Amino acid sequence: MELKKIDHIGILVENIEASLRFYRDQLGLPVKTIEANEEFKVRIAFLPIGEVLVELVEPFPDSPLRQYLKENGEGLHHIAFEVDDLKKSLAGLKAAEVPLLDKEPRLGGEGALVAFLDARAANNVSIELKETRVGKGA
Amino acid sequence: MELKKIDHIGILVENIEASLRFYRDQLGLPVKTIEANEEFKVRIAFLPIGEVLVELVEPFPDSPLRQYLKENGEGLHHIAFEVDDLKKSLAGLKAAEVPLLDKEPRLGGEGALVAFLDARAANNVSIELKETRVGKGA
Repeated sequence: MELKKIDHIGILVENIEASLRFYRDQLGLPVKTIEANEEFKVRIAFLPIGEVLVELVEPFPDSPLRQYLKENGEGLHHIAFEVDDLKKSLAGLKAAEVPLLDKEPRLGGEGALVAFLDARAANNVSIELKETRVGKGA
Repeated sequence: MELKKIDHIGILVENIEASLRFYRDQLGLPVKTIEANEEFKVRIAFLPIGEVLVELVEPFPDSPLRQYLKENGEGLHHIAFEVDDLKKSLAGLKAAEVPLLDKEPRLGGEGALVAFLDARAANNVSIELKETRVGKGA
């Protein structure tokens, strides 16, 4: 499998606006977008730094991630790697018997296709693979 | 403060060689270096992906991080941002009353200067600032 780059680092937060006081105002990161994602029931803010995005993830009240947040607190949540062809990458991982949370691509932010691996395969690190669809047509 | 890019993502692991079975052999990341750092009492492996490094951190048996690992388990540990002038960045953060773990630069891998912020300032995310010294002379 070929990973192209790190697309983003996901940070789980209680509230995006409160978090921006640190990440935008004190660290100096610009805010590219803030949007809701119904598939994952979260609001997300993307703050670009070099070729990577810092992603602040605020779960909806009814999101399973809100319960996770209550139990585990805020903090680093996942790394997303960009791949060219997500279906192909998932097939390769399945063949190598790497455990997956998502066996099929799901709809991520900005129309991207995403899938999460099982963190148990990766030293307890939650890893997302992301195929950007911008410019690829429908 | 101006952050140049994400230098690396630190992942705390029990054992580097065991972890490489996933990160090198299944994800396909190349290994750039494996080295010991006496200042932090850890072994580290750097795996480049685009402009960022994935850093696998294996604490020495007598490292405080080994105790942290026992209590918290493996997983995402910190984000390191590259800065041009670490002393200047630390002065700016102090002026803004951002809490710091390291008030002065410490010696990181490959001769870099590094300092950690207090994670309480950053939604429980451990943030490292790093000034690369390669090519800068003594």
